[in-house]
Amino acid sequence: MSSKHLAKGSVEPPAVPNSLRFYSMRFCPYVQRVKLVLNAKGTPHDTVFIDLSDKPEWYLEKYPAGKVPALNYDGKFLSESLLLADFLDEIYPEPPLWNSPLQKILDKIFIESFGKVGSLFYKLIMTTTEVEKANFDELVVSLKSVEDELAQRGTKFFGGTSPKMVDYMIWPWFERLDAIEPYTKGKYAIPFNEQLKHLAKWKASMISDKAVASYYVTPEKHAEHFTKRKAGLPAFDILNE
Amino acid sequence: MSSKHLAKGSVEPPAVPNSLRFYSMRFCPYVQRVKLVLNAKGTPHDTVFIDLSDKPEWYLEKYPAGKVPALNYDGKFLSESLLLADFLDEIYPEPPLWNSPLQKILDKIFIESFGKVGSLFYKLIMTTTEVEKANFDELVVSLKSVEDELAQRGTKFFGGTSPKMVDYMIWPWFERLDAIEPYTKGKYAIPFNEQLKHLAKWKASMISDKAVASYYVTPEKHAEHFTKRKAGLPAFDILNE
Repeated sequence: MSSKHLAKGSVEPPAVPNSLRFYSMRFCPYVQRVKLVLNAKGTPHDTVFIDLSDKPEWYLEKYPAGKVPALNYDGKFLSESLLLADFLDEIYPEPPLWNSPLQKILDKIFIESFGKVGSLFYKLIMTTTEVEKANFDELVVSLKSVEDELAQRGTKFFGGTSPKMVDYMIWPWFERLDAIEPYTKGKYAIPFNEQLKHLAKWKASMISDKAVASYYVTPEKHAEHFTKRKAGLPAFDILNE
Repeated sequence: MSSKHLAKGSVEPPAVPNSLRFYSMRFCPYVQRVKLVLNAKGTPHDTVFIDLSDKPEWYLEKYPAGKVPALNYDGKFLSESLLLADFLDEIYPEPPLWNSPLQKILDKIFIESFGKVGSLFYKLIMTTTEVEKANFDELVVSLKSVEDELAQRGTKFFGGTSPKMVDYMIWPWFERLDAIEPYTKGKYAIPFNEQLKHLAKWKASMISDKAVASYYVTPEKHAEHFTKRKAGLPAFDILNE
């Protein structure tokens, strides 16, 4: 399969037998959520990367919503990272990635509230001309409540002794939070080792997880992606260069 | 239990043995979603109505988010209508309200896209001084895609031969759509019998469903609620007057 993002004028790669087709963009955190679940489940899948700035005609024709992440399952296009995560957990039960039904809904409420971190991060990085101190401070405050949640759970991972769905659903933003330092040329860095010690330890454990490690992108590459995207330059294929 | 909405200065009613405590507001469509699932499952529950314009101190103390719908389960406050619907379906499996895992995710994607109808309806009713023709027409267009979905499914209910989760999750807005006619004193009415015939039939079938019927509010009462709320008048307890 091509690891290049396909644009207008491309042709869809032929189907792969006994494999789920996964439509992706290499730097999308929502795509990463689903990829981590596919990895953790060991689900055979083949990835087609979509150039979101110039979507292929064949993609929009087959799937007018044209979103990623998407899975083609039984001819149907399925979207929405959290729904896909649940779906994959239902059709591939091993290993189970949710705990009890009660813990599952508590985790989902937590994941939803974590959305604030994602919004504040993108506001910080992408929507202001320069990174602003007030926005940075607000992001750190929102991370403190995530730190408190982990401290209160008292476990190595949010999900217990091993990474579960709750860990995978929030991980993509932590990979990107480390990009703030190279992105701002050292001016800002999330104080993980000073104020967010449980999260610092959790991050180190997550990076050792096989599902996470095999899809990991360095802070420098994430920073390069954000810098290029903000400048309106091609930024999807930088891992292949 | 009091059917009045409790405000500041109230005391929480004592717990009821072997019963789920359900925090509600009688006219909230998201509350209604959860109520329909509780009804369909036959889950013993006791309802405490919360005055959202003047929330009781005891509620905010126990549950700082202070939202409805909420369930108190095992001492935890659980929120978000779709998450609660899933949770109830997991802990009370009978009767099952989702179909296959594939149909479940397709239904969830449909429910999410249905959110547009809800937004357009509230924009029409609540955010403009007068109901505007352009907003009304936009709402009818969005309903046509719901009509097409039901026609394409070719079943009596969205969920098949009986109401399932997908039907219950969208129903609250259909009850309210019929309020447009009394609310606008006959000036506007959704053309169910002319342009949305599958939906018209489905509505009639839904109103005969026991879970729906036992919580049904007439278009006139919904219209009265919207009129009072828009005027800033007390509007929560009008079913008790």
